[in-house]
Amino acid sequence: MQTIDDTMQRSLRAFDDYRITTPQARAVFLETIAANIEALGDALIEQASKETNLPAARLTGERGRTTMQLRMFAEMLREGSWVEASVDTAIPDKNPAKPDLRKMLVPLGPVVVFGASNFPFAYSTAGGDTASALAAGCPVVVKAHPAHLQTSVMVAGAIARAIETCGMPKDVFGHVTDGSFESGKYLVEHAATAAVGFTGSFKGGKALYDYAAARKNPIPVFSEMGSTNPVLFLPDTIRQNGQALARQYAASITLGMGQFCTNPGLLIAMQGEGLSVFLQSLETEIAAVVPAKMLHEGIHKAYYEKMEAALKEKGVSLVSRSSRQPETMEALPAVATVAAKTFLNDPLLHEEVFGPYSLLVQCAGIEEMKAVWKSLAGQLTTTLMGTDTDFSEHRSLLDLAPSIAGRIVFNGVPTGVEVCPSMVHGGPFPACTDSRFTAVGNGAVKRWVRPVCYQNCPDSMLPDALKDANPLGIWRLFNNTVGKR
Amino acid sequence: MQTIDDTMQRSLRAFDDYRITTPQARAVFLETIAANIEALGDALIEQASKETNLPAARLTGERGRTTMQLRMFAEMLREGSWVEASVDTAIPDKNPAKPDLRKMLVPLGPVVVFGASNFPFAYSTAGGDTASALAAGCPVVVKAHPAHLQTSVMVAGAIARAIETCGMPKDVFGHVTDGSFESGKYLVEHAATAAVGFTGSFKGGKALYDYAAARKNPIPVFSEMGSTNPVLFLPDTIRQNGQALARQYAASITLGMGQFCTNPGLLIAMQGEGLSVFLQSLETEIAAVVPAKMLHEGIHKAYYEKMEAALKEKGVSLVSRSSRQPETMEALPAVATVAAKTFLNDPLLHEEVFGPYSLLVQCAGIEEMKAVWKSLAGQLTTTLMGTDTDFSEHRSLLDLAPSIAGRIVFNGVPTGVEVCPSMVHGGPFPACTDSRFTAVGNGAVKRWVRPVCYQNCPDSMLPDALKDANPLGIWRLFNNTVGKR
Repeated sequence: MQTIDDTMQRSLRAFDDYRITTPQARAVFLETIAANIEALGDALIEQASKETNLPAARLTGERGRTTMQLRMFAEMLREGSWVEASVDTAIPDKNPAKPDLRKMLVPLGPVVVFGASNFPFAYSTAGGDTASALAAGCPVVVKAHPAHLQTSVMVAGAIARAIETCGMPKDVFGHVTDGSFESGKYLVEHAATAAVGFTGSFKGGKALYDYAAARKNPIPVFSEMGSTNPVLFLPDTIRQNGQALARQYAASITLGMGQFCTNPGLLIAMQGEGLSVFLQSLETEIAAVVPAKMLHEGIHKAYYEKMEAALKEKGVSLVSRSSRQPETMEALPAVATVAAKTFLNDPLLHEEVFGPYSLLVQCAGIEEMKAVWKSLAGQLTTTLMGTDTDFSEHRSLLDLAPSIAGRIVFNGVPTGVEVCPSMVHGGPFPACTDSRFTAVGNGAVKRWVRPVCYQNCPDSMLPDALKDANPLGIWRLFNNTVGKR
Repeated sequence: MQTIDDTMQRSLRAFDDYRITTPQARAVFLETIAANIEALGDALIEQASKETNLPAARLTGERGRTTMQLRMFAEMLREGSWVEASVDTAIPDKNPAKPDLRKMLVPLGPVVVFGASNFPFAYSTAGGDTASALAAGCPVVVKAHPAHLQTSVMVAGAIARAIETCGMPKDVFGHVTDGSFESGKYLVEHAATAAVGFTGSFKGGKALYDYAAARKNPIPVFSEMGSTNPVLFLPDTIRQNGQALARQYAASITLGMGQFCTNPGLLIAMQGEGLSVFLQSLETEIAAVVPAKMLHEGIHKAYYEKMEAALKEKGVSLVSRSSRQPETMEALPAVATVAAKTFLNDPLLHEEVFGPYSLLVQCAGIEEMKAVWKSLAGQLTTTLMGTDTDFSEHRSLLDLAPSIAGRIVFNGVPTGVEVCPSMVHGGPFPACTDSRFTAVGNGAVKRWVRPVCYQNCPDSMLPDALKDANPLGIWRLFNNTVGKR
């Protein structure tokens, strides 16, 4: 642990220099990291594919998403309004006199990021957590995911070269390659650590949360821990579009062998004529899916264990399983079904089965669908599939939807997470440890900052974002009015 | 506990109705609460004075602050931009197609508020926590502070009458009068509780944080736990303004008998000719202060215990104590001094002594002043007293200041917390359990909300804040550009 202690101490020292770099300098830094990752070329894709079993096309796409994210945060830094500058000028003749008050966001300190096994680029070494924390002005220490260690080493090299080229503090990025459980705990408990970002299992994410909460000085942990992403199929659309819905959902359930935290693991529908068509089509579609290798042995083993456990539960019956025999490390896509009454009384069936598995809950009516929906723990996403008739007949579902998840999808699939300002990738516990933030999109930077207020500070000593003349030309709240002044 | 369980269950049910009230309706509700508090007239002031020993003038001012806060949040609701609406329109020909995504803030659920003993109005029953949570769309359950129970009952009555007049869900406000420690724990651990607001001691606030973190589903706790609010007296100003500074600070240290979480409990200065003048003047000023009764017996007892313990520490010497003999429940204002070297090695001296006590730390030079400053735990405020010469000679202090506290005061006193958009009343642990938020000012509402994203939602089904036509006329981020569209 001495090496890790040294890494964290260096990170803390680097914070003093890094926090006062200009937004422009940090923007160039992020863009240089992006360019350096691209410069690694096919070798990076090949290495990642070897370690994760993910196909080159998918990895190439994910690399594009990663460099796009880095550039998005660079653009955010150049535009500058993200610091939420607010100015209230003095009112000396108020009783008592109102002082001059100005506020903006400042970085928290060294952020520890845990790489995600299912996103070796976009949510690992130079992924969304790292990019947003570096943008905020926080040094980052990444604990490489052991399932793609060499990929992580290559990306860490790209960051190290950017640090040198851009003249950034040498230790603004640290890379921990010790894959042990203990090193993760040690990193979260280290006095220099100011915040933690994690994407992965509930067990892992919750453990990190607990370590952080038990510290002498607790620190924020943003663990994104996945969910079952319930999909409500309303009666009219099931009647009218059963076959098309089955095709759409078979594809979403098995996309990337179900290894997405937004995988639709729970389908909720009403019994009736339409449902049998939907089920029959789903059976055919799932049976035709070609299995593929999963990310690593741990995930492969857990998939089969959790799926088999779910299938063994009383009242659960298999709808369809891929008809091909799986080879080593391959996942067998599967869909099962259960009656709502059984589901409501069986907590095991509420748990996520990470992989290409989905459970269809059959309900007697719309009230039972609502009861199933409301019985679920916090979710990253929830989806409403319906026709205009469905929505006009069941408007009350809309009032309920925000309490279920961080993102509400209409007539689509939850897989696919757009990177943009309006995205929310987060949600009530246990989807996340802090529902007030998002892990994807520009808002992700808000996890690593806090507001600071300057009272009666001479103009020349204020940060640029708060100076009278607004030299950065950013949007500010000026005497409670939004404007570029 | 059955009554409290019932209160929380009702609060949760009220959430379903309250969350869908219009911002306009909530604004009227808050304004009606304010008017009802004013309608209680002198009887409320008299009751509060009887229970807290605070003078009528102070309480009248605090009542004004309380009703002002309620009206400020009403105004915020009418203006509407606080929901941080963001719209990203679809790009169908992107590959893959970009969906339409829109995000806004939604309420978390029932908020439990613990009344503060030192602010019977502004941080208690209808104080900042309650006003901001009700504004956000969260039901509130207040645990009345036992030190001003009857005052709390009167204010709760004002809220109940506003609920009736405004036709709000009956249980949108709950009042728990059981003053026991166990009832507080039970409230934080209750399944219906979504978040907690607390203002008070470190011991109390940290205990609530620990209960919340140990829940099966942890919830956010915003505990504001006070601090020592270190003040740096730079050498040139001490030389030039020793006497004036002593007068200004004697007043701040003893304001309201030191019973403010922003009380300046730690003064940091350099030894030298100026310091002796400052100390001598401080001695005279403090000795002349007329003692007054403290809030309640617990605070009175703790003040003497903690002050005496600090004075007994090796190397600590008394500068001055009020010369009048204190009567029952009265506080004796006092200032002590210690050398920086001793202070740095004595953790007990770093602790807050809640009341009119302050410790002057004497440093050999500016580097030692910095070392003392950096050695401190997280603070609500820190203050820099200096001339232009001081600031131009010691600019590096400015880079360090944001890591010390949530608010940085220049040439003023930390007591006095303006209620406005740019205020930050919060700071790194242990000043607060979550430095990313503020307890005072418009930003306080952000503690009780989380973002929700709507993907491809038909326009007619979107909340008004996110509709195409922007019917509320609020500021939104529209395709990443700020505007009223």
